[in-house]
Amino acid sequence: MVLDKYNQREEKVNSLVCVGLDPDLEKLPEKFQQMEFPQFEFNKRIIDQTAEYAAAFKPNIAFYEARGDQGMKELKMTMEYLQKNFADIFTICDAKRADIGNTNQGYVAEVFDWLAADAITLHPYMGKESLQPFLDRTDKVSIILCRTSNPGAGEIQDLNVVQALGLPSKPVWQVVAEKVRDEWNDKGNCILMVGATYPEELKKIRALIGDMDILIAGIAAQGGQAKQAVEAGLNSKKKGLIINSSRGIIFATDPAAEAKKLRDEINKYR
Amino acid sequence: MVLDKYNQREEKVNSLVCVGLDPDLEKLPEKFQQMEFPQFEFNKRIIDQTAEYAAAFKPNIAFYEARGDQGMKELKMTMEYLQKNFADIFTICDAKRADIGNTNQGYVAEVFDWLAADAITLHPYMGKESLQPFLDRTDKVSIILCRTSNPGAGEIQDLNVVQALGLPSKPVWQVVAEKVRDEWNDKGNCILMVGATYPEELKKIRALIGDMDILIAGIAAQGGQAKQAVEAGLNSKKKGLIINSSRGIIFATDPAAEAKKLRDEINKYR
Repeated sequence: MVLDKYNQREEKVNSLVCVGLDPDLEKLPEKFQQMEFPQFEFNKRIIDQTAEYAAAFKPNIAFYEARGDQGMKELKMTMEYLQKNFADIFTICDAKRADIGNTNQGYVAEVFDWLAADAITLHPYMGKESLQPFLDRTDKVSIILCRTSNPGAGEIQDLNVVQALGLPSKPVWQVVAEKVRDEWNDKGNCILMVGATYPEELKKIRALIGDMDILIAGIAAQGGQAKQAVEAGLNSKKKGLIINSSRGIIFATDPAAEAKKLRDEINKYR
Repeated sequence: MVLDKYNQREEKVNSLVCVGLDPDLEKLPEKFQQMEFPQFEFNKRIIDQTAEYAAAFKPNIAFYEARGDQGMKELKMTMEYLQKNFADIFTICDAKRADIGNTNQGYVAEVFDWLAADAITLHPYMGKESLQPFLDRTDKVSIILCRTSNPGAGEIQDLNVVQALGLPSKPVWQVVAEKVRDEWNDKGNCILMVGATYPEELKKIRALIGDMDILIAGIAAQGGQAKQAVEAGLNSKKKGLIINSSRGIIFATDPAAEAKKLRDEINKYR
């Protein structure tokens, strides 16, 4: 079972924390900016400091692509560093991809094979059929965007969809959650991505999908929303969440202390 | 006006054709596979042969990312070759991106600045607010996925959305078309992407959006659907379309002849 890797690591370190490796070049301390591989060197320091509290690491590929082929190279170096030194930690490439089926093979080759990430994030707009190249990889996890964390997420995701006669309408995000639960997850390798910024929707999604895993994005820098997210999102086994924090940990004065603090705060409400 | 570049080129070569630069490494002729920069060398040949019939070129970035940093380097080389030798041809980076606003800055830097493409394709699922970093670039074009060309496009895009009391429901793709028309395109730099495989929907989208431009994807290798797409999609000025063909042109025995044939077939129905 492909999600065993996450579950085992989560138990080993007693942590639901995912550290987001988003090394925005402009925000890196001066000393890293002068290095040959600034993003990799910065990540290496963050990984070494936070690994003992991390069940997962999640690089968002946009921060690397901003630097073209050089950034891609440093993302690859980062993944290799993780695979070599922390092979039991679950890795998510936050790429938010989705194209037609044939074309998605390119992203599969990039993220699952070249970068060798355990999971990728995906847009649902083009439907299951388009995502089949990702879903067919039963050795990897497909994380489907459901209710995203941004302020304007509702513009499309909250549109009310007509149901069969006599049934009430429901929002697009709910249809996505149900489709993933009933159809897209037929090989047991899907999870949903939901924003910590929408605890009401998170609660409803948890009620809909049983014990399936959820990747939580958008935990504020100070961790203030952890309580809400944990209480709304835990499954029946007090698990089932991957809770990501990026800027709040990696740009903190003491990233290790911040990662530990988030882990402990989450565990307090489990 | 940012779309002037496309319009001027389209008039100059009397062509609505966009050539899709999708150099799937496995499909390249043997002689290119042995070169140091196979994708770039292949693209260079295609560009040289088809440029006189091309109003636009559209590399799909997935085929380059499949090869990691090496592929990205060859995409950059391709863009530089276009910019140096065919600076008046409109370029679209088919990347189908969309993340939260802050993160999208990375993709803006990659596609609009590093690659210096004129346009990018984008998923609508996260709403206008998330896409603002792209939309704010009034020197560039944001191409929003509306009704995609894949067989399973309807799974999410055809969901029927409840309207105000007394009004009939409408599909998600129609809501997206209307939102782009009324709100997302407030700076005049948006166009919609619609599959040639859905001429009925294309016709309705044209009726909804007036003279706005549409990028048409999914023209079959043999060009058989060009008639339908042109008749359904032209605007009141017999323009307003960017009609892409990738595999049908680039993997043909004579790419120049195929590009000319598609141009002429399209013009026959204008």
